[in-house]
Amino acid sequence: MDIDKKYFKNISNRERAIFEGAITMGALFHQFIGTPVNLKSVHSLEKSIKTAMELQPCIDEVEVKINRKLLEESKSEFNYVSLSGDMMNIKVISSYNGKKAVLMMEYIEELKYPLMYVKNIEE
Amino acid sequence: MDIDKKYFKNISNRERAIFEGAITMGALFHQFIGTPVNLKSVHSLEKSIKTAMELQPCIDEVEVKINRKLLEESKSEFNYVSLSGDMMNIKVISSYNGKKAVLMMEYIEELKYPLMYVKNIEE
Amino acid sequence: MDIDKKYFKNISNRERAIFEGAITMGALFHQFIGTPVNLKSVHSLEKSIKTAMELQPCIDEVEVKINRKLLEESKSEFNYVSLSGDMMNIKVISSYNGKKAVLMMEYIEELKYPLMYVKNIEE
Amino acid sequence: MDIDKKYFKNISNRERAIFEGAITMGALFHQFIGTPVNLKSVHSLEKSIKTAMELQPCIDEVEVKINRKLLEESKSEFNYVSLSGDMMNIKVISSYNGKKAVLMMEYIEELKYPLMYVKNIEE
Repeated sequence: MDIDKKYFKNISNRERAIFEGAITMGALFHQFIGTPVNLKSVHSLEKSIKTAMELQPCIDEVEVKINRKLLEESKSEFNYVSLSGDMMNIKVISSYNGKKAVLMMEYIEELKYPLMYVKNIEE
Repeated sequence: MDIDKKYFKNISNRERAIFEGAITMGALFHQFIGTPVNLKSVHSLEKSIKTAMELQPCIDEVEVKINRKLLEESKSEFNYVSLSGDMMNIKVISSYNGKKAVLMMEYIEELKYPLMYVKNIEE
Repeated sequence: MDIDKKYFKNISNRERAIFEGAITMGALFHQFIGTPVNLKSVHSLEKSIKTAMELQPCIDEVEVKINRKLLEESKSEFNYVSLSGDMMNIKVISSYNGKKAVLMMEYIEELKYPLMYVKNIEE
Repeated sequence: MDIDKKYFKNISNRERAIFEGAITMGALFHQFIGTPVNLKSVHSLEKSIKTAMELQPCIDEVEVKINRKLLEESKSEFNYVSLSGDMMNIKVISSYNGKKAVLMMEYIEELKYPLMYVKNIEE
């Protein structure tokens, strides 16, 4: 089966890169939110999120940075916390047929929201 | 296969009720944390969490109350929020062979932690 | 803050609709995969997934259909199953500034994969 | 606050070990089900699941083994798969005040179910 011909002929290469990157953003957030984490485990978690999400179609690179300062400040009596959206900075680079999209997620205090957006598109 | 004989003969009826209730507590929390929610959707979410988690073995009843006041206070510019542990009150009633365990989860401010505990056991 | 001006000026209206729809697709899948479900609970689950995911930015409508036949066939000794990708059909309609994207997810046997794609874009 | 006195005085040390281990079992399953995984990423995922779940209260050790053979057999056209319950073997060792519980999860073909049970309790 030619997947691209059958399912993706109605969007451009640029749109395909955006589409696949955005799926991975939404997937990453909702898969890992809630994971127990502290300073001891954070590096291992960042690495395995990266490795898992880079498996998805058209994904070149995923970078996850979890805010160590927030981790420390919000930790419970039991010395860890559930991963939440305000702690994460994510970059996803996706590409399709020569078009490359750079997507970001960062927590915007003013919006009280972990905003996902397209930082730029390289042609 | 006699599941109880094969896998559970080394714990008491009381311990079995605690075991099954605790699995459901951990499962519920980590399945639904992160779900988009606001005042409009909260009732539907509470109901479907209850319905889903009552399917698990030995579970008699699940009650989930999501804090409306917190929902409103923490909502983002986009008018919803990701479900988090501090918003939830959970009761799980599990039973096995005449022993009934009542388990609770509530957010304890002093611990900065959604604590799960056994409220009481009815014999 | 003018979010659109600050964060989304480098993509078109059409691309924005695709972007937001794709986030919701990825989010929906990874939030709800694993939820206990059977014939008794399936309607409540479909409805609460729809209600939750329609809260996300630029989402007009979400439809989730869980395959009843597969539910029955794959159910365990305990009369339920964990929701998996092969059981779900999803439609997400997202729009931004007059452009509307219709996104689908369906399990493609030949690919052994729940494929997400853009069905069409209405201008 | 003396958490144990306030919240756990109505269960024995042995029951507490079972309770905490069972929470971690349920939590682990529902947190990580759905994660993209293949032979390349499996070791990193196993390690980060272990590291994350060992943070929970009263948990001494977590071991996760993901079935490489099943990973290979079930992989999609895109060369990975969503983690599912039939692929995992889990051991959780929890203890409280001298009592140690060894909990297991394994997929039982005959039940079509990833069964969690108490393997033994060391006093």
